Amino acid sequence: MALLTRITGPRDLDRLSPEELDQLAREIRTFLVEAVSKTGGHLGPNLGVVELTIALHRVFESPRDKVLFDTGHQSYVHKLLTGRQDFSRLRARGGISGYPSRAESEHDVIENSHASTVLGWADGLAKANQVLGRADHHVAAVIGDGALTGGMAWEALNNIAAAKDRPLVIVVNDNERSYAPTIGGLADHLATLRTTDGYERFLARSKDLLNRTPVVGRPLYETLHGAKKGIKDVIAPQGMFEDLGLKYLGPIDGHDIAALESALTRAKRFGGPVIVHCLTEKGRGYQPAVQHEADRFHAVGVIHPDTGLPVAASGADWTSVFGDEMVELGRERADIVAITAAMLQPVGLRKFAETFPDRVYDVGIAEQHGAVSAAGLATGGLHPVFAVYATFLNRAFDQVLMDVALHKCGVTFVLDRAGVTGTDGASHNGMWDMSILQVVPGLRIAAPRDADQLRAQLREAVEVKDAPTVVRFSKGAVGPSVPAVSAIGGMDVLREPRTEEGERPDVLLVSVGALAPMCLEVAGLLEKQGISTTVVDPRWVKPVDEALPPLADRHRVVVTVEDNSRAGGVGSAIAQALRDAGVDVPLRDFGIPAKFLDHASRGEVLAEIGLTAPDIARQVTGLVAKLGGRYGTGDTEGAEHAEASRD
Amino acid sequence: MALLTRITGPRDLDRLSPEELDQLAREIRTFLVEAVSKTGGHLGPNLGVVELTIALHRVFESPRDKVLFDTGHQSYVHKLLTGRQDFSRLRARGGISGYPSRAESEHDVIENSHASTVLGWADGLAKANQVLGRADHHVAAVIGDGALTGGMAWEALNNIAAAKDRPLVIVVNDNERSYAPTIGGLADHLATLRTTDGYERFLARSKDLLNRTPVVGRPLYETLHGAKKGIKDVIAPQGMFEDLGLKYLGPIDGHDIAALESALTRAKRFGGPVIVHCLTEKGRGYQPAVQHEADRFHAVGVIHPDTGLPVAASGADWTSVFGDEMVELGRERADIVAITAAMLQPVGLRKFAETFPDRVYDVGIAEQHGAVSAAGLATGGLHPVFAVYATFLNRAFDQVLMDVALHKCGVTFVLDRAGVTGTDGASHNGMWDMSILQVVPGLRIAAPRDADQLRAQLREAVEVKDAPTVVRFSKGAVGPSVPAVSAIGGMDVLREPRTEEGERPDVLLVSVGALAPMCLEVAGLLEKQGISTTVVDPRWVKPVDEALPPLADRHRVVVTVEDNSRAGGVGSAIAQALRDAGVDVPLRDFGIPAKFLDHASRGEVLAEIGLTAPDIARQVTGLVAKLGGRYGTGDTEGAEHAEASRD
Repeated sequence: MALLTRITGPRDLDRLSPEELDQLAREIRTFLVEAVSKTGGHLGPNLGVVELTIALHRVFESPRDKVLFDTGHQSYVHKLLTGRQDFSRLRARGGISGYPSRAESEHDVIENSHASTVLGWADGLAKANQVLGRADHHVAAVIGDGALTGGMAWEALNNIAAAKDRPLVIVVNDNERSYAPTIGGLADHLATLRTTDGYERFLARSKDLLNRTPVVGRPLYETLHGAKKGIKDVIAPQGMFEDLGLKYLGPIDGHDIAALESALTRAKRFGGPVIVHCLTEKGRGYQPAVQHEADRFHAVGVIHPDTGLPVAASGADWTSVFGDEMVELGRERADIVAITAAMLQPVGLRKFAETFPDRVYDVGIAEQHGAVSAAGLATGGLHPVFAVYATFLNRAFDQVLMDVALHKCGVTFVLDRAGVTGTDGASHNGMWDMSILQVVPGLRIAAPRDADQLRAQLREAVEVKDAPTVVRFSKGAVGPSVPAVSAIGGMDVLREPRTEEGERPDVLLVSVGALAPMCLEVAGLLEKQGISTTVVDPRWVKPVDEALPPLADRHRVVVTVEDNSRAGGVGSAIAQALRDAGVDVPLRDFGIPAKFLDHASRGEVLAEIGLTAPDIARQVTGLVAKLGGRYGTGDTEGAEHAEASRD
Repeated sequence: MALLTRITGPRDLDRLSPEELDQLAREIRTFLVEAVSKTGGHLGPNLGVVELTIALHRVFESPRDKVLFDTGHQSYVHKLLTGRQDFSRLRARGGISGYPSRAESEHDVIENSHASTVLGWADGLAKANQVLGRADHHVAAVIGDGALTGGMAWEALNNIAAAKDRPLVIVVNDNERSYAPTIGGLADHLATLRTTDGYERFLARSKDLLNRTPVVGRPLYETLHGAKKGIKDVIAPQGMFEDLGLKYLGPIDGHDIAALESALTRAKRFGGPVIVHCLTEKGRGYQPAVQHEADRFHAVGVIHPDTGLPVAASGADWTSVFGDEMVELGRERADIVAITAAMLQPVGLRKFAETFPDRVYDVGIAEQHGAVSAAGLATGGLHPVFAVYATFLNRAFDQVLMDVALHKCGVTFVLDRAGVTGTDGASHNGMWDMSILQVVPGLRIAAPRDADQLRAQLREAVEVKDAPTVVRFSKGAVGPSVPAVSAIGGMDVLREPRTEEGERPDVLLVSVGALAPMCLEVAGLLEKQGISTTVVDPRWVKPVDEALPPLADRHRVVVTVEDNSRAGGVGSAIAQALRDAGVDVPLRDFGIPAKFLDHASRGEVLAEIGLTAPDIARQVTGLVAKLGGRYGTGDTEGAEHAEASRD
C-alpha cells in the first residue's frame, strides 16, 4: 500500500504517473477485498469503479466541483481518495459510514442510499451554478445502468436535456448488472450500444484514438459528434440519449484510466449536458465476484453483517421463511404472482422465480411501477405479492394510496427489513411504513411476531380480495416461536396478568411484531415490581382491533411498543381508537423517535433509543407509581415524563 | 343531438357510416361546450379526444377489452359513449364524476386522477391477460405527451418494452401542451417527430396510404416497420421509442377517425407492445380554447367551480396571495427560485416567472424531480420554493424525506389545495400531507389561517436554512383576517376564555389553518352553553409548540380541529406531545375520516363528515358534560363516543 497510504486528498493524484496510477488501482483493490471481507459491506460495486473514481478525481476538483455517486454504496474508493482509509469499523458504530457522509468529509454530497436520485441532485446543483454565475464550478454524477430504470432518473434526464447550455457530466457506469441483471427496454438498448461492430473496433483502438485527440473543447467535440449520422454511428449508435437531446461520449473502457480521463476532460469542457458511457466489470479483480452470476457479491455479509455469517449457517431468517411460504402458496393458487424491484434474491423470491418463472416480475429499480402494475394485475384477476424493503416502499406511497387502495385492489405488500436495520444507516431503516400507511383507507397491516405467524398472516393477507394488505417483518434471523395463551377478538394474548379474580390489572402491554419476546421480558420485570401485566399481540395492527378499547378500559395503563417511528405510528392509532371509544386510560407509546438514526448495529441503536426491556420496564414502573392507588384519581398531572424514545 | 342521444353503449357506434361518425363528433363537441360551460370542468382535453375516443371504442370491445385513460379528466367523451349523457350535475353531489368511476360504469377502470399511471396499469392488465391465457382480451392506454414526462411512465415503458410478445396498445395523445406546454428533452423529441419533412409528406397522404393498406396483422406491420432504416425514416424517425424496443405507428392525425381506426386496428393485431402516436389539438372546435396560448382552458371554473366565477371577480384567493408575495420575495432575495410540476398558472407562479424568468423551473409532471432537484438547488446555495397541489406531494414523499430532510436542505414546499377540495373527488383532496409529513425529521409545517398569516409564514419559511418547511393552505377564496388577541409561545391566541380569575377554563380549542373562523364559531356556541373556551392557532403545527402541553394542562379538555386526515394528523401529534409531557387531559381530535371522499362541493363534504361548527360544538358539549364537575374525577370511562368524523 505504498502509494495508497500517501494519498491524503484528491490533489495527491495529480502528480502520479500512468504507471503509478495503475499501481494505485491495484493497491485499492487489494485493500477493498481485505477490508470488506472482514467487516462486511458492498464489495462488487466498489471493485468496479476503482479506475473511474481515480479518473474523476483527477479531472474534477472536489469539493469545488461536485462529484456525486448514486446509491452511495459505490463510494468506498472515493472515501479512500479523500482522506478516509480506516475501514476497520466500516458501517459499525463510530466507524465510517457505508455511504457518503457529509459529517465525514467535505467531498461528500449525497448521503441518501435510495437509488436513482443522483441526476436530480446534479440538475439542481448545475442550476445553482448557473443562477449564481459560477462558470468554473462543475458537476459530475455517476449513475449505474440499473439506477437508470428508476423513474426519477428519467424525469431528471428530461429536465437536464432541456437546457443545452447548462454544463453537467453524467457518467453512466454500465456493468450490465446493478443489483441483478438490469432488465427492460433500457437494458436492451444499452446492450445494443455495447455490442455493435463499431464498439468492438472502438474498444480495440479507443486508447490510441483518445490519446491522439487533442483536447480543445467544444469545437472538437462538435467535430467528433456533430457530423450527425457519420462518425458517431461508426463508434456506436447513440440512440435514445441523443433523441432526448443529450450529447453522448462512449462507450469508454471503464478500467482504462487514460481513456476515462480523456473522455471526462472533454465532457467537462463541452459546456452543456453530456453523457459519458463507461463499461465496467462489477467485482473487477476479485474472481469469486466476477464469476458469480447472481448478485451475491453486490454486498457481502448483507444478511448478517454483525456476525459476518451467511444466512445458511445461522438458521432461518424472516426472508427465507417468506420465500419458502411463497413457493407453497404459488403451488396452491395459480393466481398468485410476485413482484420485485430489482431485488429478487434479497427479498427471498428466487425460489418462487425458479419454480414459477412466468409468474414473477422484476420491474427494475421502480417501486412506483411495482405498485401500480400490481393494481393492474389485481384488476386483471391475479393476486400480486410485491416484496420490497420497507424503506423503499416510500417511493410508492402515492401508488399504494391512489392506485391500489382507492381501487380496492387485492395486492399484498411484503415489507422486508422493517424497523431498525442498523448498519446501513439512516436511509435503510424501515421505520416509516406503519406511520404513513395509517392514512390509507382500507389497507390492513400485519406485523407477525415469529415464523409461524409470518406464514399464517401471509396466508390471511392473500385471502383479502378488496383491499391492500401489508405484511412487515424485521431484518435477519427470526426468533423462536412465541405461543399465544388465549385470544381476544383477533388479538393473541401472549401473557395473562397475575391478578386476583375481579381485580383490575395494571398494565396492558401491546406488543407489535418481532418485539414480542422483549415485551414478555418487560412484563416479567414489571411483575417483579408487583405490577400485573397483560401482553397482547394484535397481529393485525391496522385497523385497530375492535376488542382493544374495551380491553384497555379494564386496565389502568396502556403501553404500546413498536419497531417504527413513534410519529403517527401504531401507538398513535391505538390512542386515537381509545379516544374515539371514550376510553381515557393513560397511554404511553414506545417506538423509534422521529429522527434519522446513525449507523450502528441494530442492538446498539435500540439501546440508544431506549427500546430495551429494562428501559421500558423502568419507565412504566415510574408511570404506574405516579398514577397512585387506582386509575383516575386525578394526580396524573405530575406523571413523570418518560424520557427515552421520546423526541 | 340526433345521433348522440341514440348512443347507449360503444357497440352502437358500429353501425354508423363515416359521415355519421363525423356528425357524431360535431354533436359531441357542441354538447361538451354547452354542458361544461354551465357546470365547470375539464374542457380543452376532452374537445381534443373526440375522434380518438370514437375510434378506440369502435376498434376495441369494452369492457372485455380495457380502454384506459391517463389522468381521467379526458374521459368525458368516453362517458358520453358509454351511457352517461346527463352532465347537468357534473362533479356535483349525486351527479357524474369528473373522472372515470367504476361505480358509474363497467367501462371505467382507473379512477385516479394523478397523472402518468396509465401505462403501469396497462402493463399489469396485459400481464394478467398473458398469465390467464386470455389472448382475445386487449388493453389500450391513452396517455398525453405531458404525462410522459412523469417517471412512472418511463418505468412502465421500460417494462412494457421488455416483453415483445405481450400485446398492449399505447396511444400517445400528443397535443404539444398537456396542462402547459410540455417541456424537456422528451418534448423536443416529440417535436422532431412532428416536424420532419417525412411527417409533412405523411400527413398529406396518410389517409390514402392507410386506407390502401390491407390489414393483415403482423406480417404487414413488419413490412411497414421492419425495413428498419428504410421506410420508417421516410415516414418519421421513431427514435427513442424504438430504441427502447417499442414498435411505433405514426404520427396519426388524431382528428381523422378512419386513419385512427386503421392504425389502432393494426396495432391491436400486432401481438406485442405498440405505440400509436396521435396528434390532436387541445380545445379542438372551440375557438377560445384553441387560440389561448396558456393552459386556462384546460379546466374551466377551476378556481371556483362551485360558483363558476373566475378568480378576478371574486376577490383574493390563497393562490394569488402566495403568488404576489413570491414576487416580493424574489425582488428582495436573489437566492429565491421557484419550482412547479407542470402547473405554473394553477399554483400561482406565473407572475414570478414573468418577473424572474431565469429563476423558475417547470420540471414537467415530475414531483419527484421537483423535490430532489430542490435539494440540489439548496445545496448549491439557493432557496427553492416548490409550489404544488397538496395531493401531488405524495408522489415526492421519499424525496422530501431522504433527499431534502436527511440532507437538512432549506427547501420550502408550498401546498395549494390542501384539505377538502370537493368537486374533483377522492384523489384531489389534499388531506394526507399533515399526516405523512409528521414522520419527517426536522421538517416544519405552517398552516396559515388568513392572507396576512400566509404572507408572514411564507417569509418565516424561507428564512429556515437547515430544514424543509411546508406552507399549506386551502383551495379557493381566502377569508377575512382573523386577528390574534395575544400570543403564548409561538402560538396565537384567537380568543380568551370567559372565566373568573384563577378559574380553570373548560376547553382548549386548537384551530389549524383556515378553519379558524369555524373554530371561533364553535367557541361562541360553547360559551352559550356556559363552557369557557380558549382558541389558539399554533401557526406552525409541526413541531408541536412547547407552550402547548402546559397550556393544555390548564384546561379540562383539549379539542383539535384540522382540515386533514385524522389518522396521524395534527391532533394525533398534539396528543402524543401531551402524553410525552405527562399531561393526561382528555383530548378529542376532529378532522377528515381516513376514507376516500366522493365528489361534492367543499361545504357538502365538510357537512357530511361533521366538520361544521354546530357538529363540533354539540360533541364537545357532550364530552364536557360527561366529564362532570372537574377534571380527573375518574368517570371519563363513560364519556360518550363522539360519532361524527370518527372512522
